[in-house]
Amino acid sequence: MSLLVTGSIGIDTVKTPYGVSENCLGGSAVYFSMAASFFAPVRFMGVVGADCPFDLKSVFAGRDVDFSGLEVRHHSRTFRWKGSYHDSMGEAITDNVELNVLSEDPPKLPAIYRDSKFVFLANTAPSLQSELLGQVENSLFSAADTMNCWIDGRLEDLKVLLKKVNALIINDQEARQLSKERNLVTAAEKILVMGPAILIIKKGESGSMMFSKSGEKFMLPAYPADRVIDPTGAGDSFAGAFMGYIAKSGRMDFESLKTAIAYGTVAASFAIEDFSVLRLAAIKRADIEGRLGTLRSYTKF
Amino acid sequence: MSLLVTGSIGIDTVKTPYGVSENCLGGSAVYFSMAASFFAPVRFMGVVGADCPFDLKSVFAGRDVDFSGLEVRHHSRTFRWKGSYHDSMGEAITDNVELNVLSEDPPKLPAIYRDSKFVFLANTAPSLQSELLGQVENSLFSAADTMNCWIDGRLEDLKVLLKKVNALIINDQEARQLSKERNLVTAAEKILVMGPAILIIKKGESGSMMFSKSGEKFMLPAYPADRVIDPTGAGDSFAGAFMGYIAKSGRMDFESLKTAIAYGTVAASFAIEDFSVLRLAAIKRADIEGRLGTLRSYTKF
Repeated sequence: MSLLVTGSIGIDTVKTPYGVSENCLGGSAVYFSMAASFFAPVRFMGVVGADCPFDLKSVFAGRDVDFSGLEVRHHSRTFRWKGSYHDSMGEAITDNVELNVLSEDPPKLPAIYRDSKFVFLANTAPSLQSELLGQVENSLFSAADTMNCWIDGRLEDLKVLLKKVNALIINDQEARQLSKERNLVTAAEKILVMGPAILIIKKGESGSMMFSKSGEKFMLPAYPADRVIDPTGAGDSFAGAFMGYIAKSGRMDFESLKTAIAYGTVAASFAIEDFSVLRLAAIKRADIEGRLGTLRSYTKF
Repeated sequence: MSLLVTGSIGIDTVKTPYGVSENCLGGSAVYFSMAASFFAPVRFMGVVGADCPFDLKSVFAGRDVDFSGLEVRHHSRTFRWKGSYHDSMGEAITDNVELNVLSEDPPKLPAIYRDSKFVFLANTAPSLQSELLGQVENSLFSAADTMNCWIDGRLEDLKVLLKKVNALIINDQEARQLSKERNLVTAAEKILVMGPAILIIKKGESGSMMFSKSGEKFMLPAYPADRVIDPTGAGDSFAGAFMGYIAKSGRMDFESLKTAIAYGTVAASFAIEDFSVLRLAAIKRADIEGRLGTLRSYTKF
């Protein structure tokens, strides 16, 4: 079924111990769509400026991604991010950021997207996420990401959003910040009280945890990667495969969500094997299935 | 089958955000034996001084633990450790340590322990670990722990030990230090080349990983604990249940080792629920089995 994503398209410059990738394609909606398109048709929504050097339709050639919601603003500039990863490769250091179009009005939801059944709201101001979700008519399952600056500066807006989405997908630091609890199990209980039925906490190389309001729990280690080239986009790729699998199967019971988490974990493990979306663009669905089987054998007892 | 452990008996004073436990029973051999005794008979080996206030035979009443190898030195003092845990509860800060008997000659292996088939060498000087293992006649499976000061200061001794033991059980920081690799998968490959057929890396609240020389891998999250009272002894309890299960089953194939890791994870999750060995001493084997089933449901997809 139809899967809508709204998020950023970025011109990224990324420096890691393995090298530098200048002005490469990035952004949450891009990583998300690349991973999700292995599973389900994607409706893409985002804004770029006149300086955007990427032809997204070519990049996504052969994938079922609808770009009706891609807006090009001829008097604006594209979102740019410069970041670097050091020894640990665990956390990106933002060296420079130009919000550009992201600081302007958000894109408008095309009328043909209004019937989207599955919605992912990538990280942006929570008031915009709420507004966008409000334009979708009868979604079955919606999920949102957020980050430290909104938890800090727009907590009331975020609390409104949390009453509207089915799932929140954040990292461990964000979960601690939002709940004011250090222990992640306690943190999860507090966040679920704020609204969402499902909470997913991403822990980078330590894997992920999923909690439901009815007390179900799931934990999955990350795929054991021996060569991490660029962690950028791992979280959005995770969310893309997670939502893509749900949209394809149409199933939202906890057992199905566990499988969706496993697909998310596998997509993230490919995303970090090269700069930008290069690795995700090069693999086939069979590669994903193969690694899912390996991950199962690595974690089953 | 017979499981031998050699390690410390400590008089611990532990401070956590939940309170202080003064002069309580601690030490690697104590935590190990408490967890292992749920599975197999344990042969205990360690030294205390005249000041030791604990009657280990009473503490372990009803458990099949042989104290023939417990030596009381009437002119010495017992090992003492003062530590504290702060916000993160992840890492102990050592506030004070008195090695006392641990800085003297090690205990001598009783003749009746020489035929031990399963051996755990808790953390101490690697030359002593090698010497002790050499006194056991035909062990089937031996495992050792170590720590940063030996990797730093006794690396050659440690390398000799690594050629003699079947398994090394260390934490993630120690694995990085020993291998000089940040990535744990690469670190594991390097350490396995040094000798052991099996490497287990403990990652605290992020669970554990197991690697074999023949390329097998296993990863298990920690049990999701919502109330950590005192993390002291979690690693030794993990090792105790791991070795106890192996000694009981007599099976050392990788699939059986996976189950052993799961039991280790469960034992650790109980150990941290109270100070000293209070919680481990209070539970029954059925509690362990119950939590093992829960852990399986939390991780299976």
